[in-house]
Amino acid sequence: MAERSGIVFVGNKTPMDYVLAVMTTISASNAKEVVLKARGQAITTAVDVAEITRNRFLKDLKVSRIAIGTEEMPAREGENRTRMVSTIEITLAKE
Amino acid sequence: MAERSGIVFVGNKTPMDYVLAVMTTISASNAKEVVLKARGQAITTAVDVAEITRNRFLKDLKVSRIAIGTEEMPAREGENRTRMVSTIEITLAKE
Repeated sequence: MAERSGIVFVGNKTPMDYVLAVMTTISASNAKEVVLKARGQAITTAVDVAEITRNRFLKDLKVSRIAIGTEEMPAREGENRTRMVSTIEITLAKE
Repeated sequence: MAERSGIVFVGNKTPMDYVLAVMTTISASNAKEVVLKARGQAITTAVDVAEITRNRFLKDLKVSRIAIGTEEMPAREGENRTRMVSTIEITLAKE
């Protein structure tokens, strides 16, 4: 089977919710890697998720790549300017 | 002169405070690179600082390395367990 990668979008739930999502993705889809994607305040949660998963549950996972970037978000109601928001992508790969 | 690197510790001030610190470090110390260090909620701020510095002010800076980790913090008053906190180090280097 070809190598596949799963994506987990990290939002404002607790880190453990996403740790479970990572573990499910790894085991259910034969994925060799999982990419955690987050923006804004959820960036901290994404780092927590990566660290908790690697240190407590799947010790053979390595951080293979971390990328940061900026996205333009549409203006919120009542504002008339788009906002810039930081993003992160953390790739966890099986050895 | 030998290559030097500066360190900027990112805490809970606004991103622009640290953007200024990065720019001062780069220009005042002949540093070829600056390492942004942050933990906990300040991780998001550190990513913001890196992105704002690169996109708006010092366009020749590149993100040369990003590392994440975990640190054990002493228990807060009234608690009797140490806490684990995520950390990030973002290295910005001149081309």
